[in-house]
Amino acid sequence: MRMSQGVEWGLHCCVALGWIGQGEVISTAKLAAKFGLPAAYLNKSLQALARAGVLVSSAGPRGGFRLARAPSKITLLEVVDAIEGPEAAFRCTEIRRTGDGASPASECKRPCAVAAAMRQAEVAWRNELSKQTIATVMASAPQAAADRAVQWFEITRSATPTSAAVS
Amino acid sequence: MRMSQGVEWGLHCCVALGWIGQGEVISTAKLAAKFGLPAAYLNKSLQALARAGVLVSSAGPRGGFRLARAPSKITLLEVVDAIEGPEAAFRCTEIRRTGDGASPASECKRPCAVAAAMRQAEVAWRNELSKQTIATVMASAPQAAADRAVQWFEITRSATPTSAAVS
Repeated sequence: MRMSQGVEWGLHCCVALGWIGQGEVISTAKLAAKFGLPAAYLNKSLQALARAGVLVSSAGPRGGFRLARAPSKITLLEVVDAIEGPEAAFRCTEIRRTGDGASPASECKRPCAVAAAMRQAEVAWRNELSKQTIATVMASAPQAAADRAVQWFEITRSATPTSAAVS
Repeated sequence: MRMSQGVEWGLHCCVALGWIGQGEVISTAKLAAKFGLPAAYLNKSLQALARAGVLVSSAGPRGGFRLARAPSKITLLEVVDAIEGPEAAFRCTEIRRTGDGASPASECKRPCAVAAAMRQAEVAWRNELSKQTIATVMASAPQAAADRAVQWFEITRSATPTSAAVS
């Protein structure tokens, strides 16, 4: 069982967007260059985050992505669900109802005991992910990483075409 | 992200083996018939559980699998790890160290903040799985399911070739 790499990419991009400031927009190309990632694939993850309301996307020569709200209001669970989908990792196929030892429908009104136990663990995982936010991750990273992100953004911004330059 | 079906199969087989009695042996063919599963694929999961010390396998005409110890001593985590492997679902590829915004090695002595946050959630999931055992799942399933498993086993046992019949 392996989570999509898009989760790692999406989380790092949200943290970087948090560091440079909630209202600031960065293009996929720049985020891809910052982390050395393939821009087309990264874009799929960023679009998924925008569809889920974690990021806001904007078009145009200065377009790109920004955080939809404060980093403290974006949980890790929202990022994971946006990219992985909300479906559980353990999917019960109801084998209690099949084969020579099948239980009758009358005994299967409550969820399968195996599925319920696995669900309990997945709830613990989801609870932990919903307790943590982009802000808590930002706070636990080295200050130097935050400073470097801001500095990098200032440099790339000066290289961005302005409306005047484009027109 | 989806867990292998082998986890569901392995858990149900352990629960069935627990119901019929810890010392009792059942063949893969019979377990496959009980749940309507493909025997060759099920066998891979049961062999993985045997390699992990959850089941004990035995060869011969009355061979098969039995629980290696009491159901209360087998955690769900052991079954999941045996079949899925112990590797984390979230795998950090250290993108903090790559691209134009890469952090120098001196800043990367502690684990990546994103990876640490994801790890914390995975630890919560693993802790929950290690608190639950095959015995707790057996206890939360309907008594009728346990009774049916025992009855099914009695019937299949009478159909098993005895040493005398084979010799």
